[in-house]
Amino acid sequence: MEKKEKLMKHIIAAVCIQCGAEYEADDNAYTCVKCGNVLDIKYDYGYIRGKLAKEKLASRTDYSMWRYKELLPVEEDSRLTPLRVGWSPLYKTERLGARLGLRNLYVKDDGQNPTSSLKDRASAIAVVRAQRAGMTTVACSSTGNAASSLAGNAAAMGLSSFIFVPERAPKGKVAQLMIFGARVISVQGNYEETFKLSAQAIERWGWYNRNAAINPYLLEGKKTVSLEIAEQLGFKSPDYVAVSVGDGCTIAGVWKGFKDLFEIGLIDKLPKLISVQADGCCPINRALETGKPIERMEENTIADSIAVGVPRNGEKALRAVRESQGITVNVSDEEIFEAMRLLGTVCGVFGEPAGVTGTAGLKKAAERGLIPPDALTVAIVTGNGLKDTASAQTAAGEPLRIPPDMDILTAEFKKRNIYF
Amino acid sequence: MEKKEKLMKHIIAAVCIQCGAEYEADDNAYTCVKCGNVLDIKYDYGYIRGKLAKEKLASRTDYSMWRYKELLPVEEDSRLTPLRVGWSPLYKTERLGARLGLRNLYVKDDGQNPTSSLKDRASAIAVVRAQRAGMTTVACSSTGNAASSLAGNAAAMGLSSFIFVPERAPKGKVAQLMIFGARVISVQGNYEETFKLSAQAIERWGWYNRNAAINPYLLEGKKTVSLEIAEQLGFKSPDYVAVSVGDGCTIAGVWKGFKDLFEIGLIDKLPKLISVQADGCCPINRALETGKPIERMEENTIADSIAVGVPRNGEKALRAVRESQGITVNVSDEEIFEAMRLLGTVCGVFGEPAGVTGTAGLKKAAERGLIPPDALTVAIVTGNGLKDTASAQTAAGEPLRIPPDMDILTAEFKKRNIYF
Repeated sequence: MEKKEKLMKHIIAAVCIQCGAEYEADDNAYTCVKCGNVLDIKYDYGYIRGKLAKEKLASRTDYSMWRYKELLPVEEDSRLTPLRVGWSPLYKTERLGARLGLRNLYVKDDGQNPTSSLKDRASAIAVVRAQRAGMTTVACSSTGNAASSLAGNAAAMGLSSFIFVPERAPKGKVAQLMIFGARVISVQGNYEETFKLSAQAIERWGWYNRNAAINPYLLEGKKTVSLEIAEQLGFKSPDYVAVSVGDGCTIAGVWKGFKDLFEIGLIDKLPKLISVQADGCCPINRALETGKPIERMEENTIADSIAVGVPRNGEKALRAVRESQGITVNVSDEEIFEAMRLLGTVCGVFGEPAGVTGTAGLKKAAERGLIPPDALTVAIVTGNGLKDTASAQTAAGEPLRIPPDMDILTAEFKKRNIYF
Repeated sequence: MEKKEKLMKHIIAAVCIQCGAEYEADDNAYTCVKCGNVLDIKYDYGYIRGKLAKEKLASRTDYSMWRYKELLPVEEDSRLTPLRVGWSPLYKTERLGARLGLRNLYVKDDGQNPTSSLKDRASAIAVVRAQRAGMTTVACSSTGNAASSLAGNAAAMGLSSFIFVPERAPKGKVAQLMIFGARVISVQGNYEETFKLSAQAIERWGWYNRNAAINPYLLEGKKTVSLEIAEQLGFKSPDYVAVSVGDGCTIAGVWKGFKDLFEIGLIDKLPKLISVQADGCCPINRALETGKPIERMEENTIADSIAVGVPRNGEKALRAVRESQGITVNVSDEEIFEAMRLLGTVCGVFGEPAGVTGTAGLKKAAERGLIPPDALTVAIVTGNGLKDTASAQTAAGEPLRIPPDMDILTAEFKKRNIYF
């Protein structure tokens, strides 16, 4: 690769994960022109090491993902998104730990983000890069958290957004997009047709492309969840990190974050990843377990945000889990509901089904004795339960229904052995 | 009042706002035994002034409401709630400011709290005080943010909660409560009957009472929103603060926060409050405008969280707005929807109808020329739009529906003058 003047001194190149071809890290390079594979952003860790020391971080008062700017694919003079993305709380939870037989268990609640999911971390990168590149419009095709996070972050940045959704998209989610001022195109077709139309439109009108399938910068945003976990633990790496897996981009981002910190010497070991998928849609875990390539699966799970039958960042996910010597766990919808109840009841954390799938898998792994009781363990909750109250209803069961009468209340309590 | 050994050295007494009778600030004192009025917590500002200086605050790394512990009704050794309540983002928003003709406009997004509303600040106080008093169960009657915040914070604290809801309560909200492990009693009656049954049960079984109507400590939690605003502005007081008003407890809390800071010398002036209610339910504003006592009103507004026909903290609200030489503004449901769209489109902030009512009122006041263009102005958004996606749907309108075809998309864009 020719060494021309670079905008981002801390980045060496965008490297094809398959054939190793290197490209200038700019928005013309999304996938490898030689072999068609996805790219990975390669940093100059020697350069960054001098810029990002523990003491420097400790003195920063920007409690958002941008406190790690030196490890992100943004120019020094980029205008950052005004929304406070990141620095979600990391809760030490003795009570959940006691239930799972884990003495050092933490929950990272990433539902506490501006549009209530971890995806804000990726969309923040997208809008900053779009703006820096002089583009005024961003676009993606999605019905879920990618769309709402893009619409919200674009609005805050003053960019237009076009979101393509299949017509079956829930009306509440479409409304959220439109409140953010997104131009929503409801496509009378399935997801595949919707995606194709979005790709054509993005190509035709030259919008900034936030389809995580091919944009290598989004993963860099997602990795900030790990940078935070390590800093919140006092620059320690967990022994295990459990996360729900759909497309593969998030778990690959989680891994990249820890590796970055390891490379610049801020942590001295790496965690093992616990890759959790739904029984009804687990192509990545199946590939990890069998050693065979990823093959398309049906999408049969309540956890819609991770129901991805053809994962587009599957290869990165496989590499991450293998490199970490990680664990795979698949869970049923009932186990996902149980994790929702457990996180809510014991931690006061309300997650959506896909958001708590990592915790469901951690519980299962712990019960099978796969996690040492003293291991420093983190479960990442990736999205807020308010995103899907219908599932919460299914998980939660029914309240006690009675007339306004103390005698009846007392009798019902006695009958149910409540409290007395 | 007898000077016995006090648990909270920084608190002088709980004082009746009407007759001035003083009570020991403990959980036996909720309302005045002489005249039945509500109490206000009176601090020893001289004592606190020595403990809470700007430099001390600057060195604190606890970015939650508990960074202001010296100004809160909790004992030094109280176990604090583990959820990260408070320190919600304060966004400077030039673009919204430009729309409103205000050059120094900020939005405080309090939907960014653990259970997604400002009420977490009150419930955090409730569960801390309940726990400190050795109680294991908390209770309230509500369908909305008070209930979800109590259930979530109780769960995190390891306390049981009983929540009484009228049977018309939305199922999604009930589900959230139950995910938090609350015992939900759905009462086959109206809100009045539900409240009465909760009061009887609380009395009978001695649960900690989180009905904001009579518990004077909850307002102390709510005031932390103002402590944060001032600190986030570099210990400046805004000139105007706009907030939606229902029961009256929140605006009274907002006022108390600024007054506290003024008393201990951390700010050198006080803001004017902009009290915003819905046209269809504005008993507090009506009393402020006419000078007559508060009278019951119908509850005709989409903004359900502030649809309070008989405000229980009305007197405190009246005093706050009058003392601040504030402004009253009433807004229509359409103006509330417009504020939802405006905050979403321009700021990337998604608020529920009651959450954005303050902003709707600020817009109206600015358009009427009631706010000087250079005034330092803050609008508090009190709850997350995900709490009520049905209203978002009404506000947002319909997406563009088309078949998956580029020619049709192009034609539709042209027809609507979109982009080309």
